[in-house]
Amino acid sequence: MQLYVWGKAPNPRRVRMYLVEKGLAVPMQDAGDGAQLSASYKSKYPFAMVPMLELDDGTQIGEAMAICRYFETLHPAPALMGTDAKEKAVIEMWERRAYDEGLIGAAEVFRNTHPAFKDRSIPGHADPVPQVQGLQSRGRQRLGRFFELLDRQLDGNEFVAGNHISVADITALCAIDFAKIRAETSVPEDHKNLRRWYDAVSVRPSAAA
Amino acid sequence: MQLYVWGKAPNPRRVRMYLVEKGLAVPMQDAGDGAQLSASYKSKYPFAMVPMLELDDGTQIGEAMAICRYFETLHPAPALMGTDAKEKAVIEMWERRAYDEGLIGAAEVFRNTHPAFKDRSIPGHADPVPQVQGLQSRGRQRLGRFFELLDRQLDGNEFVAGNHISVADITALCAIDFAKIRAETSVPEDHKNLRRWYDAVSVRPSAAA
Repeated sequence: MQLYVWGKAPNPRRVRMYLVEKGLAVPMQDAGDGAQLSASYKSKYPFAMVPMLELDDGTQIGEAMAICRYFETLHPAPALMGTDAKEKAVIEMWERRAYDEGLIGAAEVFRNTHPAFKDRSIPGHADPVPQVQGLQSRGRQRLGRFFELLDRQLDGNEFVAGNHISVADITALCAIDFAKIRAETSVPEDHKNLRRWYDAVSVRPSAAA
Repeated sequence: MQLYVWGKAPNPRRVRMYLVEKGLAVPMQDAGDGAQLSASYKSKYPFAMVPMLELDDGTQIGEAMAICRYFETLHPAPALMGTDAKEKAVIEMWERRAYDEGLIGAAEVFRNTHPAFKDRSIPGHADPVPQVQGLQSRGRQRLGRFFELLDRQLDGNEFVAGNHISVADITALCAIDFAKIRAETSVPEDHKNLRRWYDAVSVRPSAAA
């Protein structure tokens, strides 16, 4: 099998962090070619996004959490997607919120501002997709609400979905770092719970992945 | 337990379809108050979105697929989220694509056009979120690519993620109907595989949910 990633992009980072937390080693290859995904990668994989896990039988699995689900099913321990019904549901809820509000919020700012993403407002399209004015401020607003809700959730919870680290923490950390580096939006000083959590998760070995 | 839904909104429909396919009955309540979610619902549930499943211990589970995951863990058969690692991953991949490209594509058109969503460009926010010009055409472009990729996937596959119905079909159907009714965007005539699938899934009893 081969895992395709791309530089420091946040979605491949979700999978890399996951693999370190699980203690799994998977062969990786960078799908990039300078500032963009390479033409050979895009022709091999028409969805033209990263990450993508190619299995030995040729099956291509895209979407970061689908890739994690594959490994989680084969290697249930340590559980990063929950063990019982309620835990699984709460983790999936927070993971999806972290993606929808955090990661997409930051992407709305970054992809509609940075010149390298001119005509690539969303990933994966072969035709040009123009940048949209108005998404920069909407993205920041979205991030602001996400930080606020997460700060409230972390009041009394060590991790995002309870007392164990999970994929919800992974996506939240990748979203927050992406917002900080690429969307110039940081967690406000007064969000004490979120800052405590951020400092604790950032020093885990997986955060360097 | 109680499942909160809202009129004909596409996200609660994902859960309702899922429950019919599983043969599960869950008490439901409409969270709406005319054109909007009611003030009492929003104060009870600060995320202010539907669907939401409230368990008897007070736990609130939001996000359609997190709610489905709860029931899938308690009632594994018939499996709508896969059985082995590869199947689970492929289903999750297509379900997330159907959400990201299909459902969000249609929402980009609808919520940034319809006067009832003035200042509610994205759900869940208490503060106004202005409609964004440019998202109508980007949403249509996104839907066009989604329809094309789905048509290609359904060449040789009876259902979206293979030969069994799954949550990927449910989200895809809800996205396509939402696009048709609320974003005036239908599957093109020449997408024969997708139209064959659409006709077959639309006559299942769950599609009426």
